[in-house]
Amino acid sequence: MDVARGWNVTSSPQSLRTINPIQQITSKLDMKNVNKDKVMIPLSLGDPTVFGNMDTDDFLVESITKHAKTKRRNGYTTSPGFPDVRAKIAEKYKLPNHQQLTQEDVMLANGASGALDIVIAAIAGEGDNILLPIPSFPLYETLCCHRGIEPRFYQQVAEQDWQVDLQQLESQMDNRTKAILVNNPSNPCGSVWSQEHMKQIISIARNHCVPIIADEIYANMVFGGAKFTYFAEISDDVPIISINGIAKQYVVPGWRTGWLILYDKLNYLKELRDGLFRMTTLLLGPNTLSQAVIPDILDHDMSGFCNDLNKALESNAKFTCEKIKKIEGLTIFEPKGAFYTMVGIDVDRFSKSTQNVIFDDVSFSQELLKEESVFVLPGQCFKMKNYFRIVFCAPVDKLKEAYDRIESFCNKKLKLN
Amino acid sequence: MDVARGWNVTSSPQSLRTINPIQQITSKLDMKNVNKDKVMIPLSLGDPTVFGNMDTDDFLVESITKHAKTKRRNGYTTSPGFPDVRAKIAEKYKLPNHQQLTQEDVMLANGASGALDIVIAAIAGEGDNILLPIPSFPLYETLCCHRGIEPRFYQQVAEQDWQVDLQQLESQMDNRTKAILVNNPSNPCGSVWSQEHMKQIISIARNHCVPIIADEIYANMVFGGAKFTYFAEISDDVPIISINGIAKQYVVPGWRTGWLILYDKLNYLKELRDGLFRMTTLLLGPNTLSQAVIPDILDHDMSGFCNDLNKALESNAKFTCEKIKKIEGLTIFEPKGAFYTMVGIDVDRFSKSTQNVIFDDVSFSQELLKEESVFVLPGQCFKMKNYFRIVFCAPVDKLKEAYDRIESFCNKKLKLN
Repeated sequence: MDVARGWNVTSSPQSLRTINPIQQITSKLDMKNVNKDKVMIPLSLGDPTVFGNMDTDDFLVESITKHAKTKRRNGYTTSPGFPDVRAKIAEKYKLPNHQQLTQEDVMLANGASGALDIVIAAIAGEGDNILLPIPSFPLYETLCCHRGIEPRFYQQVAEQDWQVDLQQLESQMDNRTKAILVNNPSNPCGSVWSQEHMKQIISIARNHCVPIIADEIYANMVFGGAKFTYFAEISDDVPIISINGIAKQYVVPGWRTGWLILYDKLNYLKELRDGLFRMTTLLLGPNTLSQAVIPDILDHDMSGFCNDLNKALESNAKFTCEKIKKIEGLTIFEPKGAFYTMVGIDVDRFSKSTQNVIFDDVSFSQELLKEESVFVLPGQCFKMKNYFRIVFCAPVDKLKEAYDRIESFCNKKLKLN
Repeated sequence: MDVARGWNVTSSPQSLRTINPIQQITSKLDMKNVNKDKVMIPLSLGDPTVFGNMDTDDFLVESITKHAKTKRRNGYTTSPGFPDVRAKIAEKYKLPNHQQLTQEDVMLANGASGALDIVIAAIAGEGDNILLPIPSFPLYETLCCHRGIEPRFYQQVAEQDWQVDLQQLESQMDNRTKAILVNNPSNPCGSVWSQEHMKQIISIARNHCVPIIADEIYANMVFGGAKFTYFAEISDDVPIISINGIAKQYVVPGWRTGWLILYDKLNYLKELRDGLFRMTTLLLGPNTLSQAVIPDILDHDMSGFCNDLNKALESNAKFTCEKIKKIEGLTIFEPKGAFYTMVGIDVDRFSKSTQNVIFDDVSFSQELLKEESVFVLPGQCFKMKNYFRIVFCAPVDKLKEAYDRIESFCNKKLKLN
């Protein structure tokens, strides 16, 4: 008996090291300090459904409705997901150099995030490290830290189309490095790598015998002449664990339905499969109705919907570039995929002309919010100081209004006109 | 550079300690060694949708169809779930002695399993322990071991309506005990505790200042005059973390939509809330369409559906008891809730008459499978040797056929007639 201890219910170390960088940074912003005379325009959330201009296709609605009505997809699946769904994914994601793919190579999860959690938890333990990109989708770091895995960062260079600084990447690797995580097309960069560059990354992985975790959730969402290549297409030996799902391409991020595919012709991941499978037994896969939708999508001709979406994104990306390019004090790096772009802030100029009121990306975002009610995420959310991220999914009139406000804000702060 | 290391991709320690006891035990069974002349009858899976006789209500189909059609529930929610859904759950799960409940006390998760994972990971760390019941839903142990938390077991006594051996429970507690996990109504026992007994458990928790995690996923699924009580109904001070969801009551286990509710009038869980919230940020909640269904269900009169389901379960439970009671060598402990019952095996008798072919629950299940193609889970899956579990959701004709086969199997093995 230990009556003396009193009520002292604390949070565990593993929960307390579960840190969301976006929350950490945005908690520094005073979200109530906005210009109430102007309607708030949030360009912050990576969710294309926010404004109602980019909705999913009717086909997905019909498919999920059909499966709901049968009442035959309401029960438990095997823990990596329905076998028929996994078999269909294997069939459709076979590549010319990976014809061996079967349902055993596919595991469904609660969104691409859930698939990432499964892979990261299965491939590395405490004291191991995984290489993550900068700028970076913040969840990668959250998932690593939560598991006691050391996140190590490699730099992507804005001025080189966000290609990886390969030398710096390689310098981060040691014998506790369990994987290189890549994200192409990239959130938050909107970049799409060339095959040549991807081969350079694969080559480093090969030299160190380290698999690649390829977050390819924005697969095929490219425009402006860019060509998307799956990492597995150009790797016959280095194992690629591809993360994908229906969230972004089909505009249903809330459905939380993603998967991982093991492209591993040489069976280097033989031992890892056990760990991956065990991890799936914890949560028993995503919602069964949205699982059932996947074969319907994959057997249906969705190219019309996907092309229209890409065209809309391309048009918004172009508009964003044209507008931001003209703004003094900002530098935009042209996006070629996904629906994000990073914008550089000439902090020296802003700092000088504002008597240090604006001295970094966080203070820039705060002042922009306060004076213009436009919300953009500071680059520090993505470990990229003095940049901010724009999500360009909003309707063009909203984007125009937001960019006009950003322009007049910058002009005022730089004391132009 | 470490070229010499070669390809050696292993599974992490945390993934390898993710052990599913059901898989561990059933992997000992040769599932191909069945009587092919008889159609297999599985009484093993805790999924009422398997046979098609217990399906969800049309209202759920209509609700999810409605939300899919609006296309306004496809985006991200805040990580603990849609605020309006959490507010509705708070409103409907308020109790006379817990009128303070708000949406801040509710977090949605990927099934009740996901809610359990959040609570267990947030409340205990490596070296801590959580008290789990025997017999036990195996996931509790899986979740603890996965996180490096020590599972400690307390005994529920078959002959005392599966009440807890309170003295033995208390003897397991020390200053690293972070919670007592209870499951009422119980899987696999089908037991429903009296208020008096629940108060005894709460009293122990109070004496040790340890919160109760109450897995109440079978709430209100009781029959035969049993009365269900939420733990929070009879605790004003000891914090109760209630786990619930739509899976069982509304027969949609595949939808993976559950929640946790903090009943904590005295704010003892103040510090824990941070850890719980952080855990929700990893997976961003369950499918948004099935989240959206929850307020519809809670505002609708579902009593007709629920009563019908309980009546069907009661009738199956009665039938099961009548049939099994008559079988020599078996002892059934009458279920009062959920859709499970444990059956004791008189192993001494079987062992003697079979020259030790049947010497425990696993060999009993194996022989039953081999000769009669009836599949029941051995008690060892639930840490209860020399018992087996029956899921009695199947249609009565199937149950009759299964029980007839079990009877003739037992008679043959005991060399009766």
